[in-house]
Amino acid sequence: MFIIGERINGMFKDVAEAIRTKDKKVIQDLAVRQAEAGAKALDVNVGTAAAEPTAAMEWLVDTIKEVTDLSLAIDTTKLAVMEAGLKRCKSRPIINSTSGDDEKLSALVPLAKKYNASLIGLTMSRKGIPQDAASRIELAAKIVSAWQEQGLDIKELYIDAVILPVNVAQIQCPEVLETIRQIKMLSEPPPKTVLGLSNVSQGAKYRSLINRTYLVMALTSGLDAAILDPLDEELIELVLTAELLLNKTVYCDSYLEGCKK
Amino acid sequence: MFIIGERINGMFKDVAEAIRTKDKKVIQDLAVRQAEAGAKALDVNVGTAAAEPTAAMEWLVDTIKEVTDLSLAIDTTKLAVMEAGLKRCKSRPIINSTSGDDEKLSALVPLAKKYNASLIGLTMSRKGIPQDAASRIELAAKIVSAWQEQGLDIKELYIDAVILPVNVAQIQCPEVLETIRQIKMLSEPPPKTVLGLSNVSQGAKYRSLINRTYLVMALTSGLDAAILDPLDEELIELVLTAELLLNKTVYCDSYLEGCKK
Repeated sequence: MFIIGERINGMFKDVAEAIRTKDKKVIQDLAVRQAEAGAKALDVNVGTAAAEPTAAMEWLVDTIKEVTDLSLAIDTTKLAVMEAGLKRCKSRPIINSTSGDDEKLSALVPLAKKYNASLIGLTMSRKGIPQDAASRIELAAKIVSAWQEQGLDIKELYIDAVILPVNVAQIQCPEVLETIRQIKMLSEPPPKTVLGLSNVSQGAKYRSLINRTYLVMALTSGLDAAILDPLDEELIELVLTAELLLNKTVYCDSYLEGCKK
Repeated sequence: MFIIGERINGMFKDVAEAIRTKDKKVIQDLAVRQAEAGAKALDVNVGTAAAEPTAAMEWLVDTIKEVTDLSLAIDTTKLAVMEAGLKRCKSRPIINSTSGDDEKLSALVPLAKKYNASLIGLTMSRKGIPQDAASRIELAAKIVSAWQEQGLDIKELYIDAVILPVNVAQIQCPEVLETIRQIKMLSEPPPKTVLGLSNVSQGAKYRSLINRTYLVMALTSGLDAAILDPLDEELIELVLTAELLLNKTVYCDSYLEGCKK
């Protein structure tokens, strides 16, 4: 699975404080530790606390690229902040994210083309998040069309079926799994699928357990990528075990510690 | 999920010793503890050590039914031992198991009818265990036909897609998940699906982790029942969490401790 590390996000107190005090070490430690834990890309979100979000995003990207070449997922709803981040990336960046709304697609798909970026497309619109798989698939199909119309590589498009917290929208949990399955039938080859995993357990009592269980369920349904906390060791153990049981990696007794090819 | 407790099996040393010394307490403790942990039926297998397997099965069934009314899954390949066990059950028993071979089906399906028993049908034959989902489904279809020809209730038939250890037949792990999905399309209503879970991790280093992960994958694929160790608390936590995320139980914050309806 393609793991996008979620920890460099101004919603976490340590990151918000590091942005405020320009403490490079906190950010660089999080970058290095997430990379060592298996992240293949790092989400970068300035949060809501930053007084100057564009400057904060530039500082974050510059700070991270001093210690790693991993791709960065520039995570913001503000177009100016997005472009400021994309401009400074050295590896192929990821735009996180567009919705299925025309004005978003017409701004962000060309931006992806301009910066040779991958794109995360959320199956939601100004009307909200659909209740069922069929309506999510309609939005996914719209995003796929907008991407293909620009002649872009479908393998660089990630559709996020938008999981909501189980304690507020329990009925949607199986719908999102069904959406992941159906996205794989939208085109040949299909787009990738991604989830912002931690949202499923927002406000719940057993957060890590719920995250772990849902991730295995999503992987079983065909999930390619997830934005998650790679520093959660039990979560990563389950990812490695699920990939083994899906026959995506080769078995060896010490598969958790890594095996020679 | 319908949990069939696996612990009363002569392959476990404590049970073999209890059968040898006629130590009722060991068996009755295992029966009560499995029931308290959520088992809805108990597997009963005398193992290979018993000198007189028929007498051992009769003693086990009599011993267990002194402390619980749960259904018992009489687990033996010997027809005489099977009938001796079925005869002594007070709740509807489960025959564990038949293969897809004609001689097995022609003996065990009538026995299920005679004793009003449920039946576990393994998707294997004298030729062995098929390599892929399609061949497993052929055998499943044959078992379903034999069951329906006797006018028996399809809801009392459990098809076991036969999981092999990941360290010897890794490629079959996803095939078994696909088989579980396809069994649900064999008839309307479909037969139930069951797995002897622990087999997936036989001989592997991280047994509990592999069992847990594969169970969530199988539940996501539509599994109805499993023969497993209900005393493995982490396994049961994942079952409860998966049922929540599949919207099969109603969310409450303390769902692990059980919630009021």
